[in-house]
Amino acid sequence: MENVRELKERIAVSDYRGKADIIITNGRIVNVFSGEVMHQDIAIKNGYIAGIGEFEEAEEIIDAKGQYLVPGFIDAHVHVESAMVPPHEFARVLLPNGVTTVVTDPHEIANVAGTSGIEFMLEDAEEAPLDMFVMLPSSVPATPMENNGATLDAKALKPLYRHDKVIGLAEVMDFPSVASGSEDILQKIIDAKREGGRIDGHGAGLSSLDLNNYLAAGIRTDHESTTAEEALDRLRAGMFVMLREGTVGRDLLQTLPAVTERNSHRFTFCTDDKLIPDLIEEGSINYNIQLAIANGIEPITAIQMATINAATCHNLPYLGAIAAGYQADIVFLRDLETVKISRVMKRGEVVVEDGERIETRFNRTRRMRFESPAICHTFTEKDLALPLKSTHIHLIGMQPNSLFTERLQGEVTLKDGLFQPDPAKDLAKMVVVERHKATGNVGVAVVTGFGLKKGAIATTVAHDSHNIVAVGTNDADIAFAIAHITEIGGGIAVVSDGKILKDLPLPIGGLLSDQPYEAVESALAGLDEAFASISEAEGFDPFLTLSFLTLPVIPELKLTDQGLFDFRKFAVIPLEVTE
Amino acid sequence: MENVRELKERIAVSDYRGKADIIITNGRIVNVFSGEVMHQDIAIKNGYIAGIGEFEEAEEIIDAKGQYLVPGFIDAHVHVESAMVPPHEFARVLLPNGVTTVVTDPHEIANVAGTSGIEFMLEDAEEAPLDMFVMLPSSVPATPMENNGATLDAKALKPLYRHDKVIGLAEVMDFPSVASGSEDILQKIIDAKREGGRIDGHGAGLSSLDLNNYLAAGIRTDHESTTAEEALDRLRAGMFVMLREGTVGRDLLQTLPAVTERNSHRFTFCTDDKLIPDLIEEGSINYNIQLAIANGIEPITAIQMATINAATCHNLPYLGAIAAGYQADIVFLRDLETVKISRVMKRGEVVVEDGERIETRFNRTRRMRFESPAICHTFTEKDLALPLKSTHIHLIGMQPNSLFTERLQGEVTLKDGLFQPDPAKDLAKMVVVERHKATGNVGVAVVTGFGLKKGAIATTVAHDSHNIVAVGTNDADIAFAIAHITEIGGGIAVVSDGKILKDLPLPIGGLLSDQPYEAVESALAGLDEAFASISEAEGFDPFLTLSFLTLPVIPELKLTDQGLFDFRKFAVIPLEVTE
Repeated sequence: MENVRELKERIAVSDYRGKADIIITNGRIVNVFSGEVMHQDIAIKNGYIAGIGEFEEAEEIIDAKGQYLVPGFIDAHVHVESAMVPPHEFARVLLPNGVTTVVTDPHEIANVAGTSGIEFMLEDAEEAPLDMFVMLPSSVPATPMENNGATLDAKALKPLYRHDKVIGLAEVMDFPSVASGSEDILQKIIDAKREGGRIDGHGAGLSSLDLNNYLAAGIRTDHESTTAEEALDRLRAGMFVMLREGTVGRDLLQTLPAVTERNSHRFTFCTDDKLIPDLIEEGSINYNIQLAIANGIEPITAIQMATINAATCHNLPYLGAIAAGYQADIVFLRDLETVKISRVMKRGEVVVEDGERIETRFNRTRRMRFESPAICHTFTEKDLALPLKSTHIHLIGMQPNSLFTERLQGEVTLKDGLFQPDPAKDLAKMVVVERHKATGNVGVAVVTGFGLKKGAIATTVAHDSHNIVAVGTNDADIAFAIAHITEIGGGIAVVSDGKILKDLPLPIGGLLSDQPYEAVESALAGLDEAFASISEAEGFDPFLTLSFLTLPVIPELKLTDQGLFDFRKFAVIPLEVTE
Repeated sequence: MENVRELKERIAVSDYRGKADIIITNGRIVNVFSGEVMHQDIAIKNGYIAGIGEFEEAEEIIDAKGQYLVPGFIDAHVHVESAMVPPHEFARVLLPNGVTTVVTDPHEIANVAGTSGIEFMLEDAEEAPLDMFVMLPSSVPATPMENNGATLDAKALKPLYRHDKVIGLAEVMDFPSVASGSEDILQKIIDAKREGGRIDGHGAGLSSLDLNNYLAAGIRTDHESTTAEEALDRLRAGMFVMLREGTVGRDLLQTLPAVTERNSHRFTFCTDDKLIPDLIEEGSINYNIQLAIANGIEPITAIQMATINAATCHNLPYLGAIAAGYQADIVFLRDLETVKISRVMKRGEVVVEDGERIETRFNRTRRMRFESPAICHTFTEKDLALPLKSTHIHLIGMQPNSLFTERLQGEVTLKDGLFQPDPAKDLAKMVVVERHKATGNVGVAVVTGFGLKKGAIATTVAHDSHNIVAVGTNDADIAFAIAHITEIGGGIAVVSDGKILKDLPLPIGGLLSDQPYEAVESALAGLDEAFASISEAEGFDPFLTLSFLTLPVIPELKLTDQGLFDFRKFAVIPLEVTE
């Protein structure tokens, strides 16, 4: 927030008495209030827009050469951790895509490190040329059926509202607790309201009746619509609707028909979860805009959805428009059809020029230190043994790149009463090793779908509790992979015959790299290649898919550190089929 | 704000497990999000809407019989004091008009009584079946060229943000101070932003360049547009535009052409200042809606402007819609064309039935006590003498019902060097007696336009400092009128030949009656009649007009307790014409 001096200087610039820091001339300003294009100058002072008009006096004049000037894009809901880089590095990949503000739910790192994790994200973002607003994770842990690194009850969350960038309560996923009126989640909701914050929803598959529950509680946004009808239901119920296009959740084209000229101001865009390779290849919110325009949305409407609508939705009154008093987050577009970005300004600084990032703008005066929780477990190879009382068991049916699994059954081979993986039948062993509390918990089950011929893969990215999850064809490689990622402080590894084929260290909580995102992209490509050398399955991301096999709140069968989890029974069950 | 129990009960009702307090069936719900009309039930619990759907279990079922159900109307900007009744009584006149929420600037009472005045308004509103949100008066006193009852600097205002109903900074009228960067006004603006509040503007006649100043400071609303072009300028600049239809400011028909389907969500309605007789005869925001519809605005768009748009503008996230989680403020309309109101609910209680107010809903358990500042002055009739050095002087040219005056000059008659009023030439004496600080200040000037044949009128309602202002044909009657309204603790009086023809006591700060609004209406009618008996001027409100003759921030010539004020010179000047 500015002080009196800055405000005074800005006002002086606004009526031509003072000298601007920057004037942008010859631009076509997209006015997100009126929907018009205006041919005027923009004057910038102290990172804010001082005025729109005919300006002359400035330290620097930028000639927009007839390009369109639009407000910086806002991702209305994104989990930064999905990109496996911290906020400062996330800014590097987002800004060339015109995204100058994100509203994030640091749910993953909170599951590993609690409030320290959230504070790390806030501090790491502070020096970045990107505004990262935080909605506080509402469900940590996600369920009591697994061990995670922290428990964030209402009392733990409340002090975090003191932080300027904390603006509400993140996607309330625990629908049953809301419906049943669990005191802690209701207290979190009431605290958010009292702090003037908004509350995001997570209404995957909710009916109109379920929506009543959500709305009655005061939850006002949703990013889980997968059809136009669902989007309209949510709009009618009173929610802001976020149209999602991420790595896995690709809902934009299905939901877009809900948008009309009259209701468009209730829609925004989000990515939710998007991996580095997709951010590099497609982009971020700029891709949502491109897709929307290519599919019939009027370009200025799409720009409004990506800017002022998101700012209104999240109550960010000084973002999302090119107008006096707004932060000078400005994207230069060659045209309004392709949304090709040439220049990006963040708080009045050019951070992208000729489509290229100006790396010096991304300097850090300090690199955030993060006391990454030790990966502690008392695991030995013997813990991987899977004794079975019968050969007819439940199998987890992996579905490529999906949060869901199939509920399967099958015959397996035993030796000395112990399960034997069988590459020929694509029956691999899956293991979850609790890593936060040294409980010694190891969950073991059988999964099909990975097509492993040999070796094993393991990762510390395992939703939502982020224990260690591994899949392999033999105990030795599984144990070796787990030991290796433990040794490197968290990450992803592919091993075979006792050798590391490829790894990606994620030393920040076992979730985030401390390297540039380009290194992450390259490591992911190497991991894919390594996986291809030990598997015959193709066309999916095995590490992403593996990371969802531990998420018990999504159907059907999952594995936690406490064992095989049956979503329908909402309980841990034995592997053996008994009925 | 609700507690956990209430929230839990509401959620239980929302999905049919719990029993609602009230169900409204057979209504046509106007959905302000989608613009549709929905045939569904509304369930209400603890004053909030629990759900929209098919409900059965309730303590009470209301059959809407096919009527339209719309959210309670919101007046986005109104000075309650203009109605000369306190908030609880204001609620009585507003609710039959469907207005369930007002956003007010208690600027008048603050000029008399400072923070005590603001606190009185807040407390008086607490028990009323109306939500009154307060924007803190930004310019008390309005200018240094007059004495008022209190000075509210940034430091004085800041603690008031603690009150739940204080939501921002009221119309920033002191445009020159903003432009010149006066520290106190900028600090007020920064404080409002820090508290998450919005800042209202007052951009009467401002150019695009002036608007830059306003916007650069962070001011985001305006209710002073008088043409469609002005409204569009403000919209484009990034302001919410409030279309005004009050007693004096009647701008709706001129500004309405600015509204389109696409930009309508940036428009709201306000009355600003509306007297009791007009509120009774025309109504309040319901009249703005009727006028808008009669002049081509689609009915649901007009309803949106009067409800959700105002709630968005002022960041009131639980008002302005019929949807789960919103306060149960519901207006029943017979149709969407005439906007005839049959029933009004406030926080789930029926307060108006068959168009008639249910008086028991307006009971007060306590009547607010207000230590009304004493009207202190050391005035005697001798202070009214107006010695002049020449007979050619400046005359205040009163304009009927206008905030403006004409800058006139004329010849006057002297006796013993003192001005003599001349009814034949319509030259009356005008007097302002400082009443707050016992300074003994008396301003005297000459006014034309009141058509007074005899007697005098006086009032303690005199913008913005609310000193005593009187106009008369002779010193004895002027002095008598002033003495009388002093004796009754403030108010309005018409006197002639040493007799009170009619008065209206306003014992609350000299601004507000302590009687029912019906008594105020009747007294005003009596005052009009009394004025007609001493004047030949017609067709205007003499007391309202008189109350603006002391307002120095509006052109051209005004009178303060310090003397004749020239708006162009922005200074007190002698009466005698010297150039």
